[in-house]
Amino acid sequence: MRPETSKIKIAVDAMGGDFAPFSIVAGAVLAQRAYGNDTELTLVGDKAQIEAELNNLNAGELPINVIHSSQVIDMAEEAAESVRKKPDSSIVVALGLQKKSESDAFISAGNTGAVMAASLIVLGRLQAVNRPAIGAFFPTERGAALVLDVGANSDCKAQNLFQFGLMGSIYFSQIFGNENPRVGLLSIGEEKSKGNELTIASHKLLSAADLNFAGNIEGRDILKGKADVVICDGFVGNIILKFAESIDSFLGELVRRQVRVNLLAKIGALLLAPAFKDLKKNLDYAEYGGAPLLGINGVSIICHGKSSPKAIKNAVGMARTMVERKINRLIEARLAANGSFAPSEVEQSQ
Amino acid sequence: MRPETSKIKIAVDAMGGDFAPFSIVAGAVLAQRAYGNDTELTLVGDKAQIEAELNNLNAGELPINVIHSSQVIDMAEEAAESVRKKPDSSIVVALGLQKKSESDAFISAGNTGAVMAASLIVLGRLQAVNRPAIGAFFPTERGAALVLDVGANSDCKAQNLFQFGLMGSIYFSQIFGNENPRVGLLSIGEEKSKGNELTIASHKLLSAADLNFAGNIEGRDILKGKADVVICDGFVGNIILKFAESIDSFLGELVRRQVRVNLLAKIGALLLAPAFKDLKKNLDYAEYGGAPLLGINGVSIICHGKSSPKAIKNAVGMARTMVERKINRLIEARLAANGSFAPSEVEQSQ
Repeated sequence: MRPETSKIKIAVDAMGGDFAPFSIVAGAVLAQRAYGNDTELTLVGDKAQIEAELNNLNAGELPINVIHSSQVIDMAEEAAESVRKKPDSSIVVALGLQKKSESDAFISAGNTGAVMAASLIVLGRLQAVNRPAIGAFFPTERGAALVLDVGANSDCKAQNLFQFGLMGSIYFSQIFGNENPRVGLLSIGEEKSKGNELTIASHKLLSAADLNFAGNIEGRDILKGKADVVICDGFVGNIILKFAESIDSFLGELVRRQVRVNLLAKIGALLLAPAFKDLKKNLDYAEYGGAPLLGINGVSIICHGKSSPKAIKNAVGMARTMVERKINRLIEARLAANGSFAPSEVEQSQ
Repeated sequence: MRPETSKIKIAVDAMGGDFAPFSIVAGAVLAQRAYGNDTELTLVGDKAQIEAELNNLNAGELPINVIHSSQVIDMAEEAAESVRKKPDSSIVVALGLQKKSESDAFISAGNTGAVMAASLIVLGRLQAVNRPAIGAFFPTERGAALVLDVGANSDCKAQNLFQFGLMGSIYFSQIFGNENPRVGLLSIGEEKSKGNELTIASHKLLSAADLNFAGNIEGRDILKGKADVVICDGFVGNIILKFAESIDSFLGELVRRQVRVNLLAKIGALLLAPAFKDLKKNLDYAEYGGAPLLGINGVSIICHGKSSPKAIKNAVGMARTMVERKINRLIEARLAANGSFAPSEVEQSQ
């Protein structure tokens, strides 16, 4: 645990993401300027490249630490194998700082699978949690909803979804200051008897939990904002997330078709450009700062591969909140109060 | 089998759907005018109500049959139970005509679960098919993709997805005249080793099938049109379908927000109205005429509850194509050629 008086220490993987290291270094510079008085940032990766980027940004004098690592895990590498084979990769080195209590949180826009695998290997999971989950924010007509899991677990048991509900509820309430977020179980049909085997079993556990459980919600209810926290397995969540991310390009194509045949539509599209920009922003979950890996014994935030500097800065803000609010302690306490399986039972149940 | 020379006989549930009987009767009138020379339509439901609607539409003289049924299955009724309890419902009576070979196809915008259950009970399934599936068209940047299953089966086995691939491929090729549609398996990650237990097992079966198998596709690939036929279990398919249907309302809300604060955006929205109308149409799968229940020993088409008269007319067109092209015979032949389970094995495998 860091002493209450010291700065929050955040390690950032400078080499991960489609626009690394530029976008990451530029994001760290924005974050340093925004949060520098109580946050200490460390960029991990190729030292020469990072320092060149800092100098290009006229940020060479900022108090941002740089730690050299000689390896990079590519976006397409096989996750678990790459973590084993590259102990001096920016991801593994940066997480190692947290393991040694030299940092409080980790941020990466790199290979999602590798970040997940390395976080589990290096930091481990919270004792009360069977499976960590990735939580991503979706825009809604009312604001934002946290959907989890969006890809950490392809096959889940009811106990996993139950824990996702508790973890998601705590995370949402701490991020948005909403005391009692509505937790919905993503299913087909609203009645508790509707859904697949997994959701029917999960409904029972979630109904009995100390949660503001809104019951089953359907695919159409996500964007309507019917729930603040949407629970699903990582297979369904990942498909919905990627489907949602593709809407922007699809709409663009439809509008381009109209515009080609219709001058008035062209003018309309120009006048509506701010609305489309707003939409694009709303559909880009990176703008929310990244997706936390909830249930890890530490703080690990996965950013979109195409993260902008602003998204990285927002991820730093999110990491600060997770550390300050001691979200992991809250998760452990809530899971204990709800009779989550003890670790010895976990192995048997999986 | 109907003699080649006679008209195609289509029975329409006049009582099902949010705007029944008006919308259904009006759709039948449109269909009669479009296809009447080789199609014989029968409306099933409350005779007095149907005839009143026909008269309101100045269509009392059209050669549309009306068969009275005294019961209606409501949109919210429990599916299997309602079918058992209401033998004189419009759904059960209309399907009974097909069972007695007095009709070739059935269309309903009523309770989806009840249509599905009644179709299975009254018509049964094709011998080679373990589980029928609902196929729905999604708009794509290139045209349209058929996604199946979108709700008939919440929990599936690999054998089911394999059969959905074969049935979907045949259906798509007959509707669009595309000889060799690309069949994609909806999963997370493109490699065959990625996905959940179901998709990994299904990938093996689909790879070995006589199909233009495009491998795994991701959530973002649906709207891009990366596959013509998208295979998934009915849980995932239903969630994606309903999510997609909600995009229109979400976008409307975002645009309204911009318009409230920005006069130029308001003008832009007016000028772009045709594009939005196009989008709305593209996102409304009812415009494709409805969703066939593939694998049934007969023709049963499920329309959206909010179907417009035009959607009902399009569903009649779709039903005609299914009958004319003898799609069920093609499905049986293709499944036999691909070593689908025989019926005796089906029960054991489920």
